[in-house]
This record gives sequence, structure tokens and C-alpha cells, in this order.
Amino acid sequence: MTTRSPVLIVGSMAFDDLELPTGSFPDTIGGSATYASFAASTFTEVRVVAVVGDDFPASILTALETRGVTTKGIERAKGRTFRWAGRYDPDLVGRTTLDTQLNVFADFSPKLEDEHRGCPVVLLGNIHPALQSQVLDAMTGPELVVADTMNFWIQGEPEKLEALLPRVHVLIINDEEVRQLSGIHNIRRAAAEVRRRGPHTLIVKRGEHGALLFDNTGIFAVPGYPLEDVVDPTGAGDSFAGGFVGYLASHLGKGGAVSAHVMRTAMLYGTATASRCVEGVGTSMVQSLVIGDVEARVAQIRTLFELPR
Amino acid sequence: MTTRSPVLIVGSMAFDDLELPTGSFPDTIGGSATYASFAASTFTEVRVVAVVGDDFPASILTALETRGVTTKGIERAKGRTFRWAGRYDPDLVGRTTLDTQLNVFADFSPKLEDEHRGCPVVLLGNIHPALQSQVLDAMTGPELVVADTMNFWIQGEPEKLEALLPRVHVLIINDEEVRQLSGIHNIRRAAAEVRRRGPHTLIVKRGEHGALLFDNTGIFAVPGYPLEDVVDPTGAGDSFAGGFVGYLASHLGKGGAVSAHVMRTAMLYGTATASRCVEGVGTSMVQSLVIGDVEARVAQIRTLFELPR
Repeated sequence: MTTRSPVLIVGSMAFDDLELPTGSFPDTIGGSATYASFAASTFTEVRVVAVVGDDFPASILTALETRGVTTKGIERAKGRTFRWAGRYDPDLVGRTTLDTQLNVFADFSPKLEDEHRGCPVVLLGNIHPALQSQVLDAMTGPELVVADTMNFWIQGEPEKLEALLPRVHVLIINDEEVRQLSGIHNIRRAAAEVRRRGPHTLIVKRGEHGALLFDNTGIFAVPGYPLEDVVDPTGAGDSFAGGFVGYLASHLGKGGAVSAHVMRTAMLYGTATASRCVEGVGTSMVQSLVIGDVEARVAQIRTLFELPR
Repeated sequence: MTTRSPVLIVGSMAFDDLELPTGSFPDTIGGSATYASFAASTFTEVRVVAVVGDDFPASILTALETRGVTTKGIERAKGRTFRWAGRYDPDLVGRTTLDTQLNVFADFSPKLEDEHRGCPVVLLGNIHPALQSQVLDAMTGPELVVADTMNFWIQGEPEKLEALLPRVHVLIINDEEVRQLSGIHNIRRAAAEVRRRGPHTLIVKRGEHGALLFDNTGIFAVPGYPLEDVVDPTGAGDSFAGGFVGYLASHLGKGGAVSAHVMRTAMLYGTATASRCVEGVGTSMVQSLVIGDVEARVAQIRTLFELPR
């Protein structure tokens, strides 16, 4: 009997064609569910619901299973896997989307089995908000609902998104998205407005500048860890979310409660996980991430805001 | 006999014509030395060296004197005071310079009297690096040399700037400037390169994202305090520098040494001072700043990276 508490992760699995300053990396395995599942599996058992085409390599599913990710919820559909192509600026901050082919992801409708319904923690990756709600409808009351979204849904499906928000405990979006969702530029006022619409906790991702957490206790700021070598920022946000929910689920599995302290500690673990992710191309780093790697980075991040004696 | 240790501040005094989202504020008192002197005088005795024209109001000099700023080093030249005009974007992040008139500042050559030469701490505001060196030549070995510069000098006077750097203990510049000065995009490598050229401590200002300190102890990150009401960002960097040197000088005046701990604490005080500054138009907030206001904000900033129990 495990003391670990499974996380359900719903999202995309993809091929990414990456043009990085260090070279071109076609057919790199990517997708929000892939990054988040590898990341979360560092901490706890993961059950993933996603769709791939008949071109998706079985070896990746095996790699996930090896790390304790149950992949029975990954539907293999006829056709090609979701594909994204992007070129990063030399500074690795800006990026241009060159191509997006939804392929089998266009008709993705998450199908939950019994093993998915009862998971105490769920990470709703960035998919149509109606599908995110549909996942929650099928679940038997998860203790913690964590969700991501993006400008595309904020603009295109505002009503569906508004209906989802009261069911979300923790929303993880970037600073532009929190401004767009709230219609307010000031980040603190914007955060208060978004939290008024549902989530008790809002995490605002700010790329290299780290992340802010807003909850009833106040505000918590985790700086980005200044790395000497950033290789590939792809999947950083998904790895953050995966590390965050993985840490929380592991904590719940040990009988802990999700206090303000634990939520902030999970922020540190998410930040550390993301920081490890960007040190390699694609999922190369998160595929082999061990908890010691994350804890070493958490310790480095903690030094950023420690006052030495 | 005071236990406070005077800071010498050299820089500009100006009129700013500000176009803020909240309205137009012509003839607002500004300038790096003005902001920094008001800010530093919250903590310690200040002696300022600058130049104004015959149009500069005596009331500001009186306001400075009232706060313990010795203004005998402010030269009153024939002609008009330095003037800057700028328009802020609605988000108060971007801004456009509409006009710059150097006026009497064009011929500014800092003249140090005996009372300036022996100051243990000096803040060299953003002026020609040859003039910054000239100030140091006239001083009798300050314990702590803190300097600012900008892209204009990095591009236009690289040799003069390189000659200054080994004489600077703490350089305070923004992230774009550290990249430009080092020729390196990665902020950590760029910081190492700049420190190799002289300053043992580099502070990288990142606007609303706070600031990073790099020294031999490591890296320290102070988040920006998310304010609900930012009124006018003008002078935030100068107020940061003023609060930073003011705190350090006050600490030295009490017989303390400038340890890594003290340097980081000074970062918190600088950040808090800047955060107070932007809550009002121009120097309105720093003109009346008291140490309790700063300490209350320091306490608020500390909560941003505290893990509650």
C-alpha cells in the first residue's frame, strides 16, 4: 500500500519542432500533459488522460509507465499527433509560433475511467474550458483542482471559462493572462478580481522573473533562479504545474493538509522543477528527474531570499 | 556629536514635465540627486553636489536642508535648470521621452568642498563617467563607492566607464544595461563579467520585478512589492539608490561593518524606499518620508518571501 496520492493530469501530448539558438530539434516530444506528467511523477503517482496519433512513439509511454505514470487514459486515435513548431529568439525569451497542427487533438474529449475519477488532485491542462468542466463533472470530488488556461480561451470562450472558475482551487496563468482575464492592468487588483470569480489561490507565472502566489494569507513571491545555461524554455510552465501538483499530492498522500505554508512550499518545488526542465531540450531533463535534483534546486532558490549572518 | 555618517550624493537636479495616465504634471521637481537625497535623508546626513539654474525654487533647497541635506554643494548657475519631459504608457511600465534640455547641466563639473571630500559613502549618480572619476579623485578614500550609469555612457564612453569600474564597490544598473555593458545576454554570466571588471557587488534593477544582488556570497533576489496604486514611477531607481546608500551609511555611522547581510538588508530598504516613492507624483512621497514608513514597507516585502507556519 502506497502512501502516495495519485494526481490526474489532463492535457496535450505533442510533437514539437523546436528552433533553438543551439540548433534545430524536429519531432521533439512535447505537450502540456507530457511535461507535467514527467514532472509530477518525480513526487507521486500520476494518471494521465490525453490523446496521441498513431505516429506517437510507444517508447515515451513506456518511459512514463517506468516513472509510475498510468497511461491507460492516453487514447491512441487514428491520424497524426498534435504538432507545434516554434522558433526562439537568441535571448530565449521571445518566441514565434511557426505552425500549429491540432490533428487528433482537435477532437479530443477526455474519457475518464474509474481509476481517474477518484484522484484527490487534478491538473486541468490548457484545453477548452468546457472540456475542463466535463472532466470535473466526471470526478468524485477531488480535494484539489488546479487549472491552466490561455489567452485563446480567455478571448474565445469567456462564458465557459467563467463557469469553470468557481470549481477551480488554484489557477496558474501568466501575467498577461491574468490582466486579460480580469481586464485590469495592476497585477494585485487583477489577482483580487480573478480570485473573486472562484479560485482561492492564483499563481501568476512571470517567466525568468519567477512567480507570484495570491491567497487569503497574502502574497508570496518566488524569484526565478538565474541559471547560467538555459537550453530550452519549452515546457517550463507545464513542468512548474507538474512539480507543484506532484508535491501537493505527495503531501496529501502522507496525510498532510494543504495549508498556506504547504502551498508556498509547493511553489518552490514547482519553480525548481521548471528550472531543471529548461536545462535540456524538450522533456530530456524531466524524463529523468529525481527528487534529489529538485531538492538541490529548491535549496539554491532558498538562498536567493535568505539573509546570511 | 552625531553617530550618523554622511553620504555624498552627486547627480542631477531637474524639472520634469510628466504626462501620467492620471494627468499632466508640468514643472515637477526631479533629477537623480534630488530623489536620492530626499530618500537617503530618511536614514542619515546627506551632502549633495549638483547644479541648478536660476529658475530652481529655493523652497526645494529649504525642504532638503530641513531633512538634514547640506545643499552648499548645489551650484546655482546662470540659465535654466535641466529639464526632462516624458509620457508614460497607461500601464506605467513603458515611457517615451518627449524632450530633454540639458541647460546648465550640460556644463556640470562637480566641485567638492572639504565637507564633501571626507564622506565615507558616496553615490555617484548617472553622469559622465569621467566626472564620476573626477569626484573620486577629489575624495579622501570613501569606504563605500556606489555608482549608477546608463546606456548612453555604456555606448558613448566605454573607456571612461571601464576606468571607473575598478574604483566602484557597488554598481546599480538595470538588466538591459548589465547586458549591454557585458555584451552577454544571460544575466548571471553578464553579472559575473561586470563584477570581474571592478565592482564587488552588482545590483540589477528589474522594475516591477524587483532587483537582484550579485556578490561573493551569491545571489540575493528582492521581489518588487506589488502595489495596488502606482502613481508615478519617475525616480524609483534613484530612490532605491538613495535608500540603499542611506541605510548603509546609517549602519556605518553606528559602527557597523558592511557585511553580506547588511548589504542585503540595504537592498530591502532601497526597494521599500522606491516602492514608497512611486505612490505619489514626483518627489512628493520621498520629501516627507519617515523611517517608520520605510520599515513598514520592509516588513510587507519580507512577507513576500516568508513561509507562514
